[in-house]
Amino acid sequence: MLPVAVDAMGGDHAPEAIVEGARRAAEELGIPVVLVGRPEELREVGDLPIIAASEVIAMDAEPGSSVRKMKDSSLVRAAEAVRDGQASAMVSAGNTGATMASALLRMGRIRGYNRPAIATPIPVPGSTPTTLLDSGANAECRPEWLVEFAQMGAVYARDRFGIARPRVGLLSIGEEAGKGSPFVKECFELLDDAAWAKASGCEWIGNVEGRDVMSDAVDVVVTDGFTGNVTLKTLEGAMKALIGRLLVAIDTDDATREAGMVLGPALDAMVSELHPDTVGGALLLGVKGVCVISHGSSSPDAIVNAIKVAAEMVDVEMVDHLSAAAAGAES
Amino acid sequence: MLPVAVDAMGGDHAPEAIVEGARRAAEELGIPVVLVGRPEELREVGDLPIIAASEVIAMDAEPGSSVRKMKDSSLVRAAEAVRDGQASAMVSAGNTGATMASALLRMGRIRGYNRPAIATPIPVPGSTPTTLLDSGANAECRPEWLVEFAQMGAVYARDRFGIARPRVGLLSIGEEAGKGSPFVKECFELLDDAAWAKASGCEWIGNVEGRDVMSDAVDVVVTDGFTGNVTLKTLEGAMKALIGRLLVAIDTDDATREAGMVLGPALDAMVSELHPDTVGGALLLGVKGVCVISHGSSSPDAIVNAIKVAAEMVDVEMVDHLSAAAAGAES
Repeated sequence: MLPVAVDAMGGDHAPEAIVEGARRAAEELGIPVVLVGRPEELREVGDLPIIAASEVIAMDAEPGSSVRKMKDSSLVRAAEAVRDGQASAMVSAGNTGATMASALLRMGRIRGYNRPAIATPIPVPGSTPTTLLDSGANAECRPEWLVEFAQMGAVYARDRFGIARPRVGLLSIGEEAGKGSPFVKECFELLDDAAWAKASGCEWIGNVEGRDVMSDAVDVVVTDGFTGNVTLKTLEGAMKALIGRLLVAIDTDDATREAGMVLGPALDAMVSELHPDTVGGALLLGVKGVCVISHGSSSPDAIVNAIKVAAEMVDVEMVDHLSAAAAGAES
Repeated sequence: MLPVAVDAMGGDHAPEAIVEGARRAAEELGIPVVLVGRPEELREVGDLPIIAASEVIAMDAEPGSSVRKMKDSSLVRAAEAVRDGQASAMVSAGNTGATMASALLRMGRIRGYNRPAIATPIPVPGSTPTTLLDSGANAECRPEWLVEFAQMGAVYARDRFGIARPRVGLLSIGEEAGKGSPFVKECFELLDDAAWAKASGCEWIGNVEGRDVMSDAVDVVVTDGFTGNVTLKTLEGAMKALIGRLLVAIDTDDATREAGMVLGPALDAMVSELHPDTVGGALLLGVKGVCVISHGSSSPDAIVNAIKVAAEMVDVEMVDHLSAAAAGAES
């Protein structure tokens, strides 16, 4: 396999946490990795090769203009490595908008998908994760794009989580067909035509609600990028608040603190199961290549998981499956 | 105080759970209550008076037409009791849309607010709840309505939670002014004019994100009713999933089960603090009367809390404060 190109300069803890994660992915999992960034700033890289890139797009930089101007940035070079057949996939914990723009402008779109979408796996206790898309690439969407998101989400859920016939739902505010905003009602009309679902080998289950996202009721939830991003961040906030409140409960008195020690490993397993770092980042679907968008706060663990997911999606030929699904829907 | 009119027929556990909650509110808290419903179906009502209403609007009935046709329904009669000065407030765990329609059509709007909005308090561990509005009354909104929601939310946060100068934020997908959908950007422009905030005695803090809702970063979060409802239900789902997963962690082995017993009271306190039943339902703001919308699955406890909140909002003269805020913003 061609190496996974890892943007060594992107993320709150870059480059140290990124390099450490990349080394561990190579050493522990045997995945070939190439770092992309400023060679002079990358330490303890071990045997990892480096693609030199002299510029760094800041976390808060304006995505479009940065990608256009900074042609020697680590993000742009990582995307070019995939385009040019030097790398099999790219991973970045950097500026999300710039990651999308680099991937879109350098790799190009897969024919049949108007817009790339970010697909984020939401952990579901005791079950496979729910894939939420678009979780932030397109703040405003056209109804027909959501049909494409549904197709892409179904391919991804099958390739990533082995769900043979993913159940796809439209995020709304009631289960009945007539519920939701005018935009969502239009999306429902388009999605309710069974042809795309048949072509994608998935099951269209109609509207779902916010409460279904973390449940086993649905495998793929499609929505516009604004609602998806609000949902994703609301979940992050809820996790943080609840785990914080749980620690307060454990800290009530000596007896509860002792009970907390006993529960420690089971609670650690719970937190790790629900932590975004574990699921290994979101994927930008719809571009001609595997592009993993990791959380800005990514730890070395998160980077290891992101690289693992990237390699798996290359291995399973997800991009080819996305192309085939688009072609099937057209024919 | 005039009695609180309680729709005895609305809710998944009506009329039993509703009657029990109403009796307890009267007996334990000394709040005057009048039940509204079919006298022959209401048992063990104790000393509670009843306003007879022969019809019941089903939980899944179409709101507008039901309210227009079923003039002798418990919901319509409860709203009329407030309008006619027989009751001080109304409480229902029934059909949310029909509750809104009854209140709007019978009580009327407060001058200065184009549309009523549902304000839902979101529990925040260790702090006062965050008020989220609109959490479902208006699936599609105009930007100017969100300024009115902000005014109403500020009055409510002050009257309900004693927050002298509530911090009001706009739900978006990034903190910077330029982030969000075109609709949200328009809302930002309007909200970013300091006049309304000054008139409402609150602090406009700009965009907030989903992760801020359950945090102490903001007191009032304004959004359209679609996004608000998705956010609310996402939080409900997250709570349920996390508490379910916590029980699994506790059920690992004999030692963790024993630790779980020790932690029992502290965990019960946590769950009760975060449970929607505890906060006592949402308020429909913008109508000429206090209208509490309780969860369809309301337990007797939830009804007690809903009646308590209704009585408090009557007592503190929230409706007058809402009118004054609208008048202040106009002048």
